[in-house]
Amino acid sequence: MKLLKNIDEMRQWSRDMKNGGARLAFVPTMGALHEGHLSLLREGKKLGERLTLSIYVNPAQFAPTEDLSRYPRDLEGDLEKARYCGTDAVFFPSDEIMYPRLYQTYINVEDVTKNLCGASRPEHFRGVTTVVAKLFNIVEPDVAIFGQKDFQQLVAIKTMVHDLNMPVEIIGCPIVREADGLAMSSRNAYLSKEERCAALSINRSLALASKMVESGEIDAFKIMTAVRKTIEDSKIAKIDYAKLVDADTLTDLTTFKRPALVAIAAFFGKTRLIDNLLFK
Amino acid sequence: MKLLKNIDEMRQWSRDMKNGGARLAFVPTMGALHEGHLSLLREGKKLGERLTLSIYVNPAQFAPTEDLSRYPRDLEGDLEKARYCGTDAVFFPSDEIMYPRLYQTYINVEDVTKNLCGASRPEHFRGVTTVVAKLFNIVEPDVAIFGQKDFQQLVAIKTMVHDLNMPVEIIGCPIVREADGLAMSSRNAYLSKEERCAALSINRSLALASKMVESGEIDAFKIMTAVRKTIEDSKIAKIDYAKLVDADTLTDLTTFKRPALVAIAAFFGKTRLIDNLLFK
Repeated sequence: MKLLKNIDEMRQWSRDMKNGGARLAFVPTMGALHEGHLSLLREGKKLGERLTLSIYVNPAQFAPTEDLSRYPRDLEGDLEKARYCGTDAVFFPSDEIMYPRLYQTYINVEDVTKNLCGASRPEHFRGVTTVVAKLFNIVEPDVAIFGQKDFQQLVAIKTMVHDLNMPVEIIGCPIVREADGLAMSSRNAYLSKEERCAALSINRSLALASKMVESGEIDAFKIMTAVRKTIEDSKIAKIDYAKLVDADTLTDLTTFKRPALVAIAAFFGKTRLIDNLLFK
Repeated sequence: MKLLKNIDEMRQWSRDMKNGGARLAFVPTMGALHEGHLSLLREGKKLGERLTLSIYVNPAQFAPTEDLSRYPRDLEGDLEKARYCGTDAVFFPSDEIMYPRLYQTYINVEDVTKNLCGASRPEHFRGVTTVVAKLFNIVEPDVAIFGQKDFQQLVAIKTMVHDLNMPVEIIGCPIVREADGLAMSSRNAYLSKEERCAALSINRSLALASKMVESGEIDAFKIMTAVRKTIEDSKIAKIDYAKLVDADTLTDLTTFKRPALVAIAAFFGKTRLIDNLLFK
């Protein structure tokens, strides 16, 4: 497994592989790899003959008040896991390489980033789409794989790729959960025992939403009131948003209609977690 | 010479050429080709084994008050000129293909687009960089050629390519002028005889700036006052801006220092012309 830190090295490796006829799969991450990431690598392994992982904690997607400096980092552990999953190359650039002096170009995906996390984190998706475009231009993959836990991120990236005619296929993979139902996240490492226990209310609320939909409930207000109540019952949760949205446009629904998404963001202590449930 | 109207056709042609080992040169234009454009095609012919021209009047770079609907169009004439210059493929997409329903992604280059035309035409460069990124993703050229008459456009595109790590080389070509010194522009077709005569004052003013610099003048205010006076002497000119700027950052200079640019935009009747002089 190659560890590549420079843009030219990374691009040359990709081009060599592609010139050899290999289809190139790519999994961009911020590291601190967990089973969710590994499921993306395993999917990548199926979709391409060569698999690249990038590890880069992207400052452009954190607001000044957010957790950039304390975001978990574990390069050695990540490399071991990547190797275990059959990764062929890891791109691990520095901030100086990704955002050199006088850096000034940003990609905005407008409509689908307005609601949900985009409303709470105004420049977040601008940072995400910009760094993903940069990584695509450096790695030049045929297919890239993202998790559906960051559902709005996946929609924003799909929209960018479609609108800007980027020559890459985007694949979304299902949320991977801990045994107790908590969605896997690098940020779960921040949780105290009490917070982690309270955070299980998110998954419980999604299960309740699923049940209500199955039993024919279509009133978004009723569904989401039940969801909110389930989370708020955990006492220490502070809901950022809990919404039923159209899964394509991410605009609010008042009446359930597929494809729909129940999307939740909530704080447990200082830790903000997100989760969702897709009704295809 | 191929005329390609669809994205998949265009990309397939490019990939076939590149798989055959050809270096691909690309000249993006809005059509109404004049000698300035043809000089870019000739340069492209030198720089690549295969040459693609795009003709697309990009609505995203026109403000509602501007001349989108009356912008000169001459596909047949353009194709003849393109063929004459040895163009191998012409990409001629429709608005529906370039900006489909729900289109919502834009690229902003921030600092270098603030001054000059960016100050007068607030969303212009966002439209330019966005469409150029789209065209690069469709055509996948090795090298792309732009004219230096739109100097700020060239700087914005170079900055975007650098910042977003786009795998394409950007080449700028010198301004081509009519026999009487007027910079070639598709918009010259709008000028009445009287306006055209008055417009020559721009080139005269640049010649004066050049003389002043040669004779040791470094006071930007003195140089630009003389430039303004020369243009305003033509009576019907209305200066939009006339500035001495740093040719890299496009920020105003108070004292002449290379690389510098004298940049001018002025209205003659309803027609807005731009021109510049680079001191390397």
